[in-house]
Amino acid sequence: MTPFAIAVHGGAGTIDRADLTPEREQAYQHALADALRRGHALLQDGASALDAVEAAVRVLEDTPLFNAGRGSVFNADGQHEMDAAIMDGSGLQAGGVAGVQNVKNPIRLARRVMEKSGHVLISGMGAFEFAHREKIELEDDQYFFDPFRYEQWQRVQGTDATRLDHSGGERKFGTVGAVALDRHGHLAAATSTGGMTNKRYQRIGDSPVIGAGTYANDATCAISCTGNGEAFLRAVAAHDVHALMAYKGLSLDEAVRVVVHERLPPLDGEGGMIAVDRAGRVVLDFNSTGMYRGSMGADGVARTAIFR
Amino acid sequence: MTPFAIAVHGGAGTIDRADLTPEREQAYQHALADALRRGHALLQDGASALDAVEAAVRVLEDTPLFNAGRGSVFNADGQHEMDAAIMDGSGLQAGGVAGVQNVKNPIRLARRVMEKSGHVLISGMGAFEFAHREKIELEDDQYFFDPFRYEQWQRVQGTDATRLDHSGGERKFGTVGAVALDRHGHLAAATSTGGMTNKRYQRIGDSPVIGAGTYANDATCAISCTGNGEAFLRAVAAHDVHALMAYKGLSLDEAVRVVVHERLPPLDGEGGMIAVDRAGRVVLDFNSTGMYRGSMGADGVARTAIFR
Repeated sequence: MTPFAIAVHGGAGTIDRADLTPEREQAYQHALADALRRGHALLQDGASALDAVEAAVRVLEDTPLFNAGRGSVFNADGQHEMDAAIMDGSGLQAGGVAGVQNVKNPIRLARRVMEKSGHVLISGMGAFEFAHREKIELEDDQYFFDPFRYEQWQRVQGTDATRLDHSGGERKFGTVGAVALDRHGHLAAATSTGGMTNKRYQRIGDSPVIGAGTYANDATCAISCTGNGEAFLRAVAAHDVHALMAYKGLSLDEAVRVVVHERLPPLDGEGGMIAVDRAGRVVLDFNSTGMYRGSMGADGVARTAIFR
Repeated sequence: MTPFAIAVHGGAGTIDRADLTPEREQAYQHALADALRRGHALLQDGASALDAVEAAVRVLEDTPLFNAGRGSVFNADGQHEMDAAIMDGSGLQAGGVAGVQNVKNPIRLARRVMEKSGHVLISGMGAFEFAHREKIELEDDQYFFDPFRYEQWQRVQGTDATRLDHSGGERKFGTVGAVALDRHGHLAAATSTGGMTNKRYQRIGDSPVIGAGTYANDATCAISCTGNGEAFLRAVAAHDVHALMAYKGLSLDEAVRVVVHERLPPLDGEGGMIAVDRAGRVVLDFNSTGMYRGSMGADGVARTAIFR
């Protein structure tokens, strides 16, 4: 049987077990499994890895549980500025959006950027203008509103503090992402995020940057990261995994281990990544206490987890 | 003698000899030599590579000859949106700005982002707000106005065409950049650009993206790129040179050759890059007909060139 596989994440960080009620934990596991099933069904039918990662990320964007799409955090101006990127490992095509507002599914817009804009990365009101022109589904501010995120923001509004999706004892980086290998041997990666609570200066993190938070190359692997974006940008984290495999001959799990546990920590790089290689091997690794994550291979069994 | 070296570029592309009068060619060579001397003087005195690349890029931003700072091209709205990034190879610190307006020296702002913002990449009005707060020198629109750039824009305004700094037969990517090795063995890279004439959607190119258009790592090399930004983003071009050296053991000139002549062309990646390694070896390579470029080693002799 031709191997195929999909993996997803919903962020990483210091997740306090005490803060996570059994009901809330179950809700996270269900959402991750839903995303996996959605992508898996497409792969099973012979769809592309690109379609599978987009579909899986859309499921995660549509739930307010994660900091992406619906449920994105508030920036310093009380708005939702979202970032996303997608990459097709077969032709190294890529698209990303940074700081876009009111787009229901930023990952869909990122894909349209890849296919229609002639660019790789667009931003802000320009990205909104492109979304409007391409008739990408928009939503009003009310759609993105989540009382939990609003309360997070109220605690730091008017200060210089940014919060990487803090809540109580929880230091969490609430990005979502997916990686997949399809039956045709192609790899793809997708990442989407609402960034940091109370962020300023139209900060761009690693998620929409090809090579930092998102990368796919049929020669090696597909990667989606979550964590302290500044460190992942400086480490060019996703491309570094590819390079360790391509040029040093490391296996996927060795390459991910080097980047997550050796390269990122000296740069204050807390977080993790999900990865799949061309043989369908999946690696979900992180240097924080937890990462919302899951994977599903050809057997169709959803394996989800939060803690180690 | 401890080696030290600096190299600069002022863009690459299809430069038509017939379009370049002897006077104009001389003006370009003089500007490149000025930038080299400025950076070299600092290095000679024991200053950091970081100070040298910032100073050299500021010289190139201040002349209207190049598409960066003063002399930046017009976007679709008739404005100047500038991108820049700087990276310190000693601690992998980095800063960048995307789509900033009215900042006299975007490279200076990029450095301030690195040192003061807590972020790696900021954009648009947010970057302007940070510049204002940090008392970075601003200029009105008139300062950036260049009749040659205005005429370029007038020819494509109102159309969907973007121009990578076209003029007549000249298909030129008018970014500027500098790389340096200092007497303490540290490397740094800096890049600054006005992007594409008539660009839309707040497009972000490779210049402000760490790993794509700009990268420095004391372990290997410092790189600044110029060319079709979309291809350099997809290739993660600058970091790929580093990776080929670090993981595959290639020399600087071999690594640059692989990326410029093998990786980029299949992605429609026209352009080039300047690079320096920890031994002070300089490589200036491109796959287009020309690149405005120059280098200066410890001997203090400016070597500048435009064509092959």
